[in-house]
Amino acid sequence: MSMPFGLDDYEQYARNNPFMYYNHIELCSVSPERSVVKLTLAEESRNLHGTVHGGLIYAMADCVAGITARAEGRDYVTQSAHMNFLGNVKDGDVFSDATVVKRGRRQVILHVRVYTAGEKLLADGVVDMFAAE
Amino acid sequence: MSMPFGLDDYEQYARNNPFMYYNHIELCSVSPERSVVKLTLAEESRNLHGTVHGGLIYAMADCVAGITARAEGRDYVTQSAHMNFLGNVKDGDVFSDATVVKRGRRQVILHVRVYTAGEKLLADGVVDMFAAE
Amino acid sequence: MSMPFGLDDYEQYARNNPFMYYNHIELCSVSPERSVVKLTLAEESRNLHGTVHGGLIYAMADCVAGITARAEGRDYVTQSAHMNFLGNVKDGDVFSDATVVKRGRRQVILHVRVYTAGEKLLADGVVDMFAAE
Amino acid sequence: MSMPFGLDDYEQYARNNPFMYYNHIELCSVSPERSVVKLTLAEESRNLHGTVHGGLIYAMADCVAGITARAEGRDYVTQSAHMNFLGNVKDGDVFSDATVVKRGRRQVILHVRVYTAGEKLLADGVVDMFAAE
Repeated sequence: MSMPFGLDDYEQYARNNPFMYYNHIELCSVSPERSVVKLTLAEESRNLHGTVHGGLIYAMADCVAGITARAEGRDYVTQSAHMNFLGNVKDGDVFSDATVVKRGRRQVILHVRVYTAGEKLLADGVVDMFAAE
Repeated sequence: MSMPFGLDDYEQYARNNPFMYYNHIELCSVSPERSVVKLTLAEESRNLHGTVHGGLIYAMADCVAGITARAEGRDYVTQSAHMNFLGNVKDGDVFSDATVVKRGRRQVILHVRVYTAGEKLLADGVVDMFAAE
Repeated sequence: MSMPFGLDDYEQYARNNPFMYYNHIELCSVSPERSVVKLTLAEESRNLHGTVHGGLIYAMADCVAGITARAEGRDYVTQSAHMNFLGNVKDGDVFSDATVVKRGRRQVILHVRVYTAGEKLLADGVVDMFAAE
Repeated sequence: MSMPFGLDDYEQYARNNPFMYYNHIELCSVSPERSVVKLTLAEESRNLHGTVHGGLIYAMADCVAGITARAEGRDYVTQSAHMNFLGNVKDGDVFSDATVVKRGRRQVILHVRVYTAGEKLLADGVVDMFAAE
C-alpha cells in the first residue's frame, strides 16, 4: 500500500472513520494537492427544510481537508475552519474538494468547496490543519 | 404551543430535523437569548482517532445557533460560520450552547461553544444566521 | 465617467477614502470580477518586527473587496471577514486582489489575497459584503 | 521593567510599532488575561462613508490580541482572524479589548471586540496567535 493512513483503500478508510461512513461520505480521489469526497444524499442527510444539513456540508469539507493534508504522510487535526453557505439542494449527489493554499512546516491551509454534480456551489471556505505529533 | 417551529416539543423538533436526530443531537433548553443541545456520543460519532468527529462538533454548534435564532419567531439559515477546535474526548456527553452577540433586523450573530459535562472546551466559534423570507 | 463611485479616477477614489490614502494604498485595476490594489511600503506600514502590520494587510484586502463589490454599481459594507496570515516582508511593493466567489441579490462573497511582486503569498482570506440601502 | 516587550511603557511600545502609532492606536491596559487599546479618531481614520475604516477596526483588534498574547512573555504572530462588523461611528473614541479563550502550548485564541465609549459594539471576532520561535 503506497498511501499513508490506508488512503489507497477508499472503502476501508471510510469504515475506519465511523461518522463519515454512517453519514454516507465516501472518497472519490486522493492526493496531497487535491482530494474529492462524495455524499450520497439520504433522508438522514436533511435539515428541517428538507435540504442538506449545514453540519453535514461542513463535515464533508472537514473530511476532504483532512484526507488531503494526510495524503502527504503525517497525521493532522483541524485547528480552525471558516465556511460560507451559498446554496442548497434536496436531491442528487453532493461533492466536496480541498486544494492546498499553503503547506507549511506543521500547518496546512486548504481551500474547500461543496458543490453538486451540476457544479452549483453550496459552500466555500477554508480549513486550517495542524500536524499532530 | 407557545414557541415557534414546535420548539416547545424537543423530541418532535429533533425528529423533524433528520440529520440532527440520526446523529443523536437533542435539545436541552431553548430561548431567543441562549439555547443548549446535547450529543449522546455513540460509535458513529467518532473520527479515525476515536474522538468526536469535527463535522459533528460543528453540526452541534450549527443546530443550537439555528434553534436560538428561530426561537424569536422567524426562520433562519446559516450564512457563515467560523470555529476553533480546541480539544476533544472519547466518551461522555457533549454539549453546545449559543448566545446572541447581536440580533439585527435580518441577521443574528451567535457565539457558539462545544464542551463536555466537566466544562472542558472542545470548540469555540461564531455563526452568522440570516432570516429566510 | 463610466464607473460608479468615481472608480474611474483612481487617485480621486483613494483621496475620498482617507484611511486608504493616508496608509499608501492605491488602486491598480478595477472591475466587478477582479480588482487589484497596491501598498507602497513606508516606515509607518510596519509592526514591531519591521514587517507589514497585520492590520494593514487586512486593510488592503478590505479595500480591494469593497472596490470590486462596488464596481457593479451599488454601495457595499463589510459584513464579516476571515484571513489567514501566511508570510511577511520588510521591503518592496505589496499587492492585494479580490475575486468574486458569489454575487447574490444583496451579498457578495469575495476571495482575497495579499502578495508581493514576486508572488509570495502573505495572506489569503474571504470577505462577505452586504449591499447598503 | 516587569513586563515583556516593554509593555510597561505604553508610549514606547506604540512608538516601536510604527503602524499602530501612525494610526493613533494607544495602549490603555495590559495583562495576559485581558488588554485594552484606544483609537483617537482622526480624519485619516475614516472610510468613504466618513466612519471608521474597517481596516482600522480590524487593526485595533489585531494590536490588542498581540499585546495580550505577548504579555505572558513570549513573542506571537497572528495566524488567522475572523471578524464580524456590526456597527460604526463618525466621532468619539473607539476601544478594543482582547480576552483569552484558550492559551495552549504554542497557540493563544483570543476573543476580540471593538466598541465605543458608550459600549456600542462595532466589531466582534476571534484572533488565533502562534508563538514565534
